[in-house]
Amino acid sequence: MKLQLAIDTLNLSDAIRLIDDLYDYIDIIEIGTPLVLLEGTKATEVISNRFPEKEVLCDAKIMDAGSFESQIVFEAGADYVTILGLADDKTLEEYVDQARKYDKKVVVDMINVENIDKRVPKLEEIGVDVIAVHTGVDRQALGRTPLDDLKEIKKYASKTKIAVAGGINENTIDKYIKVRPDIVIVGSGITSAELPQNSAERMYKAIQKYR
Amino acid sequence: MKLQLAIDTLNLSDAIRLIDDLYDYIDIIEIGTPLVLLEGTKATEVISNRFPEKEVLCDAKIMDAGSFESQIVFEAGADYVTILGLADDKTLEEYVDQARKYDKKVVVDMINVENIDKRVPKLEEIGVDVIAVHTGVDRQALGRTPLDDLKEIKKYASKTKIAVAGGINENTIDKYIKVRPDIVIVGSGITSAELPQNSAERMYKAIQKYR
Repeated sequence: MKLQLAIDTLNLSDAIRLIDDLYDYIDIIEIGTPLVLLEGTKATEVISNRFPEKEVLCDAKIMDAGSFESQIVFEAGADYVTILGLADDKTLEEYVDQARKYDKKVVVDMINVENIDKRVPKLEEIGVDVIAVHTGVDRQALGRTPLDDLKEIKKYASKTKIAVAGGINENTIDKYIKVRPDIVIVGSGITSAELPQNSAERMYKAIQKYR
Repeated sequence: MKLQLAIDTLNLSDAIRLIDDLYDYIDIIEIGTPLVLLEGTKATEVISNRFPEKEVLCDAKIMDAGSFESQIVFEAGADYVTILGLADDKTLEEYVDQARKYDKKVVVDMINVENIDKRVPKLEEIGVDVIAVHTGVDRQALGRTPLDDLKEIKKYASKTKIAVAGGINENTIDKYIKVRPDIVIVGSGITSAELPQNSAERMYKAIQKYR
């Protein structure tokens, strides 16, 4: 089990300061979509060069032109790039092909995917590396939680690694760990904590026994 | 009817040269997703500052966190920003609210939206400005064309402007014009033409009588 820190700061120097502070407790650094929109591939380049021992994920949320657009982000040094589970199969296939060429990983963001029972086996057939639970705001308003979605996706996945995000913090992490995701994604649960380093350390330790 | 030039060059100076060449024949400059991924908001800033008399569209394809992410792109100077039609209603609503604050426009990319008959009226209720036909590669492989999708979306839209893209060039533009979209989006139909300026001029003239 790995801990992924989702970085949603609005500038690169704040992001670097944050990573420096939390360095010992992070496996994967996620460059959030706002920073991708603001800085382009520069954010990925700077962070992957500065922290070569850490894995870097670029939350590009690719929907279209998988081959072309993933190439841009892999070239910039990302180890993982996200694509939407709602993208076309052909787009996903091209994207997985590119990832294999670069020896990088494809993460599928499951936001608003309805037919989990059919989509997860299809994604495994296409050969994606990680399936990431993402419960959209409309679904959450209807009472659906990321924990429900994690359980459902785990049910249909036989070989692909599973990541989960969604308001995870020190107090809620245990119930997620119980379902055995491979990657736990935490954002404000660390960055908005009173003592971010302590929170990160506690969460990092909580997942240690499943490494 | 307006002509939108989709720019898919991989650097900003090539983009600027292209716009300079085609300046007289373009209403809207579209900064394509690859350039957004590469350069971030810088591409939007540079192009909107350099061509203040033209409208600029940033193809950010927002899926999530509508309010936050649209703000980043509107601040950079885009007149239009794209959001996916597959996004949550709440995300779309926040995004339309932001657009109203900045006096900017929301373009919905209809890629992979299945239930056109229900989704288009909902998008009109939310108050989006433009609905953009986008026929994904999987659907195209099944024989569906952008022209089919344009006709279907026109059927269900009563007030929202409609844009259409999908391999439009000098030879095919007439059949699109007949269906009366509000915005015709052309990319390689101009940029890969033997004489891009001549092609752009011809297409620009073809839509003149519907301005």
